[in-house]
Amino acid sequence: MLEQVDLTQRTEKDQYKKEAAGLKERLSSLQQEIKGAKLPVIILFEGWGAAGKGSLISKVIINLDPRGFQVYSIVPADSAESRKPLLWRYWTKIPQQGQISVFDRSWYQDISVAKLEENLSDEDIAARTASITTFERQLTDDGYLILKFFLHISQEEQKSRFNKLLSSKNTAWRVTDLDRKRNRQYDRYYRLFDQMLESTNTPNAPWHVVPCEDKYTAQLFIFRTLVTSIEEALRQKQAPAAPAAGGIVVPDSFAMKPMPKLQDVRLDKALTDEEYHEKLKKAQKKLKKLHNELYQARMPVIVAYEGWDAAGKGGNIRRVAAALDPRGYEVIPIAAPDKAELAHHYLWRFWNHMPKTGHVAIFDRTWYGRVMVERIEGFCSTSAWQRAYQEINEFEWELHQWGAVILKFWLHIDPDEQLRRFKDRQETPSKQWKITEEDWRNREKWGQYETAVNDMLQYTSTGFAPWHIIESQDKKYGRIKALHTMIAAIEEGLANR
Amino acid sequence: MLEQVDLTQRTEKDQYKKEAAGLKERLSSLQQEIKGAKLPVIILFEGWGAAGKGSLISKVIINLDPRGFQVYSIVPADSAESRKPLLWRYWTKIPQQGQISVFDRSWYQDISVAKLEENLSDEDIAARTASITTFERQLTDDGYLILKFFLHISQEEQKSRFNKLLSSKNTAWRVTDLDRKRNRQYDRYYRLFDQMLESTNTPNAPWHVVPCEDKYTAQLFIFRTLVTSIEEALRQKQAPAAPAAGGIVVPDSFAMKPMPKLQDVRLDKALTDEEYHEKLKKAQKKLKKLHNELYQARMPVIVAYEGWDAAGKGGNIRRVAAALDPRGYEVIPIAAPDKAELAHHYLWRFWNHMPKTGHVAIFDRTWYGRVMVERIEGFCSTSAWQRAYQEINEFEWELHQWGAVILKFWLHIDPDEQLRRFKDRQETPSKQWKITEEDWRNREKWGQYETAVNDMLQYTSTGFAPWHIIESQDKKYGRIKALHTMIAAIEEGLANR
Repeated sequence: MLEQVDLTQRTEKDQYKKEAAGLKERLSSLQQEIKGAKLPVIILFEGWGAAGKGSLISKVIINLDPRGFQVYSIVPADSAESRKPLLWRYWTKIPQQGQISVFDRSWYQDISVAKLEENLSDEDIAARTASITTFERQLTDDGYLILKFFLHISQEEQKSRFNKLLSSKNTAWRVTDLDRKRNRQYDRYYRLFDQMLESTNTPNAPWHVVPCEDKYTAQLFIFRTLVTSIEEALRQKQAPAAPAAGGIVVPDSFAMKPMPKLQDVRLDKALTDEEYHEKLKKAQKKLKKLHNELYQARMPVIVAYEGWDAAGKGGNIRRVAAALDPRGYEVIPIAAPDKAELAHHYLWRFWNHMPKTGHVAIFDRTWYGRVMVERIEGFCSTSAWQRAYQEINEFEWELHQWGAVILKFWLHIDPDEQLRRFKDRQETPSKQWKITEEDWRNREKWGQYETAVNDMLQYTSTGFAPWHIIESQDKKYGRIKALHTMIAAIEEGLANR
Repeated sequence: MLEQVDLTQRTEKDQYKKEAAGLKERLSSLQQEIKGAKLPVIILFEGWGAAGKGSLISKVIINLDPRGFQVYSIVPADSAESRKPLLWRYWTKIPQQGQISVFDRSWYQDISVAKLEENLSDEDIAARTASITTFERQLTDDGYLILKFFLHISQEEQKSRFNKLLSSKNTAWRVTDLDRKRNRQYDRYYRLFDQMLESTNTPNAPWHVVPCEDKYTAQLFIFRTLVTSIEEALRQKQAPAAPAAGGIVVPDSFAMKPMPKLQDVRLDKALTDEEYHEKLKKAQKKLKKLHNELYQARMPVIVAYEGWDAAGKGGNIRRVAAALDPRGYEVIPIAAPDKAELAHHYLWRFWNHMPKTGHVAIFDRTWYGRVMVERIEGFCSTSAWQRAYQEINEFEWELHQWGAVILKFWLHIDPDEQLRRFKDRQETPSKQWKITEEDWRNREKWGQYETAVNDMLQYTSTGFAPWHIIESQDKKYGRIKALHTMIAAIEEGLANR
């Protein structure tokens, strides 16, 4: 893409002033429209060193109300960030509806300069590129506008700008050895950037290569692109919604493990008190030892608990947690999303809770809310939940690629058992806080949930993140099965490292 | 304090089981009461290595609903944390009302082991100790319950526990060289810990030293202390509020700079367009250079903008921001607090926004809302805002000690000028979003705000964080004065490093 850019373009100052004034004013009022329309916007800047990134970003944001945007400078990952999944630090910085996130460098560092400077293989780059295009597609599918600018200058121009910076004591420190190396090896980086641009120039998030040898030309180019792209996105948002897609987006990138239908699951499995206590003690001891080992191996573990109300998630989680060192695990309870969570992509809040390598994250309810309660209660559009099976598999694939062991438990009981437990809760003062009106309302929708759960089991039980049905009619049996399943998965994960 | 603890205490297993069962159950139900009473609780664990911290914390949290607590493990500050004020990583982790934060090690590392291991002077330790007691006092004044446990064992016991860990391949890695050094130098650390306990054993946040040579004794001690302390805190919360304190808590720890009353400020200062453009260009160029220098010197700068509605804060901030590199500054707009912010200590959200060293944070409205809008609208209790002048001075003192340059601007206009600007906003379509019903309501309270602002100027204009009145009747004059004031303060800050 780079060779198509004419770097000789020049704009006169007068001409610039005339045109820029109107564009700046329009940009400023568009920000109010973005807010009104609840459009989330990502603007990212990549490009050559000394192409003028800092001052171009400054020229853009100076026209914006600071209540509506945030600038993020992406430098190489620090020690804490390195222990999170690759996309974690980008997902956690996406804007909420009506807001703008400006990225000064971005995830594109991970598939461009990182190749030469961290010695990545072509396979690594291909995998990361796929992660990035998926990330951007998930956002634009959710209504995000992504504007990607690449600031282009020639090798000679870059060299002369570096020399100018080096000639003054005040600015010389800005030119690093790495910058100078990159200038000497301009051709190698050129090919790298060009490949990056080509492979990620998607229709939903296209690149805009900015000729930056003349500052007025560059500024006008960016102002114009911002104004026309934002106006277009606002028009699309106001346009009547497209007819709903034709049913569930059946995930086809991943092989699925066959799962039984819920109605075929036998619930008569049980343990005596003695069996239970003996097995519990043994399993907890084993898990404690494995926690130690996975910590040393820096292997992250993600456990997702779903299940019927009163199926015993809390008690089950407690038996697992009791075996773990509190410094190395966290239980993340997922309630109805709050205002900020609702205003972001639904996966944002789960990305925010990803553990460090070597840690265990236990989710008490999960991202599967999208295809259960949100589907049934109409909290998201039909096409949103129909698309979610694929998105969730992609999400879990990211975590798997990062090296995580992923366990997903469906705690299963039958409606009669649920009724017994509800009544018990209602009649026991110390348990009354556990039962709400909503639980009774959900119970009336047992059939709808059963359909949704069967779809979920069918479409999201991948080889790398399979579902495990935990028969919990007998709580003791369910707890031991969850512990044993975790132990087996962690042992397998450790063996495969 | 340590010598008073009897380490020979033992508890029989049967005795433990009998008593612990009831305490655990009580603890579990107390968590519901904490939630109901909106009591925020901090439980921290310090002590000797191998005293059993991990398993004791585990025994506590296993009784708790994970929706109501969070465990934080404090290890030495990483590179990102080191660029924040000392207390930043603790302030950002305080619980909200009704929640529990459990700290596995804490701020006490900074005044105990840090003394020997980071070679701190007695003065450093004294300053940090003062910061910590202030921090805890601000929290308990706001209704927080702080429970501090120190886990005590003897040198011999510690040595034998280390040896046991070292004897197995699976646990040997847990004993570091530093642990062994600390065991050899037990006496030195003993004196250090003892001094730490003595100097921070305040009535509002006392220490509980736990005899940990026998695990049942230790567990019972902790359970009993938790139950009695939480019950006591809940009783106090339900007790009728004490009569309001007698007026403003006049800050006496800091010398104040005398400030004029608002009515004595002359508002006839103005600049012609030519003067303005010439001065603006020059000042922005100078500030740009200084931004470069303060970045290299790793000096943080905090700018607080307050002022009458329509005094021109936005435009003034924009002229400052235009001179800055977007990678090194952030504008933080402060609106009415959201739900999570309301449920924390009011300073929490400002701590969350502290810049890194070498960066500039510009606050568009600030923590002074406590003594203006919250005072006038009754959003906090009388004693809360009356106490806030002292708290705010302490807060700014922390930032000053960290090395920050602190600038506080009051943008001043008179009521007639405000009316002109309100009307102009209402009549200009592109400005209408800037004016709300609330602005008109605030205007009616001009007199109350004037009293509050005069109090604020009188009680919070310290030598290290003085107020600057920015006459903004003429916006051009106000912008240049703000720029010049910033330039002078940054130059002085750089000269004093």
